Amino acid sequence: MSSVGNLFADIGESLRNELVETILQAPGFRIEKIVSHGHSSPEDFWYDQEEHEWVILLKGRAVLRFEDQSESMTMTPGNYITIAKHQRHRVEWTDPEEETIWLAVHYT
Amino acid sequence: MSSVGNLFADIGESLRNELVETILQAPGFRIEKIVSHGHSSPEDFWYDQEEHEWVILLKGRAVLRFEDQSESMTMTPGNYITIAKHQRHRVEWTDPEEETIWLAVHYT
Repeated sequence: MSSVGNLFADIGESLRNELVETILQAPGFRIEKIVSHGHSSPEDFWYDQEEHEWVILLKGRAVLRFEDQSESMTMTPGNYITIAKHQRHRVEWTDPEEETIWLAVHYT
Repeated sequence: MSSVGNLFADIGESLRNELVETILQAPGFRIEKIVSHGHSSPEDFWYDQEEHEWVILLKGRAVLRFEDQSESMTMTPGNYITIAKHQRHRVEWTDPEEETIWLAVHYT
């Protein structure tokens, strides 16, 4: 029996922290749902990941920054990007007015 | 240099056929964008795939049917489902009024 999930399902009142939920785990990759609500990376913090990440913004709005690039990137619904492993990046800003929902595929 | 794509980017006037675009190909899986516009599977046709598929509907509306289930499934934005390899299924209907956009992850 196949059952249907909903990525935009009720997320609850307010998010003190970013919500990260694994949707699918398979050999070599995993799919995650990430929900932010005004969250950003701590000052001077950079993600430096062991795996590649393909990520698409599905709802809301965010600004990403890459250490090796001078300009920030504004992400709106439908925008996707591949972040190579160890490509240092941070989330500068997510919309405080609504939830920002990402779908991320982490792979080796 | 990372560059940003847009899954909801301009698709063009009318689609005679379903549009299938590979967004990412990696060992063990690939990510596809599929755009339907009123398309459905031919009568009596069943998909019978060699790979598992995780698929999410991001825009539009569709009805899926599985051979091993009596009821059809209506998919609306955010709905996702995992289709095991060789689980025979078909697309009964997609919305003729707007594009239906899917993101599919095929994996072994």
